[in-house]
Amino acid sequence: MMENYEVTRLLVNYKTLEEFKNFREFGAAELSMKGDLEANIIENDSESPFYGIYYGKKLVARMSLYRIDGKFDRYFEPAQDYLELWKLEVLEPYRYKGYGKALVNFAKSFNLPVKTNARQGSSEFWNHLGFEPVTYQPTRDRGESPYVWYPDGVHEQHADTEPVNIESTNF
Amino acid sequence: MMENYEVTRLLVNYKTLEEFKNFREFGAAELSMKGDLEANIIENDSESPFYGIYYGKKLVARMSLYRIDGKFDRYFEPAQDYLELWKLEVLEPYRYKGYGKALVNFAKSFNLPVKTNARQGSSEFWNHLGFEPVTYQPTRDRGESPYVWYPDGVHEQHADTEPVNIESTNF
Repeated sequence: MMENYEVTRLLVNYKTLEEFKNFREFGAAELSMKGDLEANIIENDSESPFYGIYYGKKLVARMSLYRIDGKFDRYFEPAQDYLELWKLEVLEPYRYKGYGKALVNFAKSFNLPVKTNARQGSSEFWNHLGFEPVTYQPTRDRGESPYVWYPDGVHEQHADTEPVNIESTNF
Repeated sequence: MMENYEVTRLLVNYKTLEEFKNFREFGAAELSMKGDLEANIIENDSESPFYGIYYGKKLVARMSLYRIDGKFDRYFEPAQDYLELWKLEVLEPYRYKGYGKALVNFAKSFNLPVKTNARQGSSEFWNHLGFEPVTYQPTRDRGESPYVWYPDGVHEQHADTEPVNIESTNF
């Protein structure tokens, strides 16, 4: 049985950055946060785009969640604001205990469409949580494997600008 | 000393798809190619967005390369057509022999700016090939670690639409 994990909005501070070092996906987003903090561009303890779950005092799961403006929506019909979810990761010893599911359910709780880029081998996880793959559009998806969750009344957006023949987008 | 590897534009056919199964990154792009081929949407042996290097008859390295229209350019100044490179991968036993470098040099040979999303731990590889990280912009880069290569006279595009304070893009 799954526990009722508490999802917390993470703060931008050196403690959070230290916790992030335990996660495999550590890249430009984290380095940028560090730089902004050091240069006082971002205030210490301001809210970050990251959400996480603590086990005791240890951050064991996290994700980044952004609200994308409907005018940039190329995934949903009708076009609307949606949530983009990335960097979903659970630390190795804490996997398969429902932490990932708790984070994704938190994202779904806003009742906005959710889009993510499924990592290699994760399709079963996303399917299980009600996500579906979209029709791949090369210039939009650029090698990603987008999975989406539709709230009631929302459907896949049909391509209107994407050429059917990929040749024309190549050289 | 590095050999002079021949970079080949890959064809869309069942042989190419069979070769792709050897690569770790097998996702929506490949499944879409398979579906299009099966449904006769794409002609057998038409050109794909993939380029690769064969060792004998075996495909040992590949990448996907797209020309992105300058009107979508949010990375380069002046804004212009650029190449987006992804799915760069060399099969395990063939690594560290210059195959990856040969593919990247092929991309650079068009003398257009090149943008890629650096995978975890690959920054040394990209730096070595003259690529640089860009200033991270959360809503543009969405968790990616973009690395770019600038031809002469091209610079980083400054953010004009991206808020400095990430708070305003969140909720």
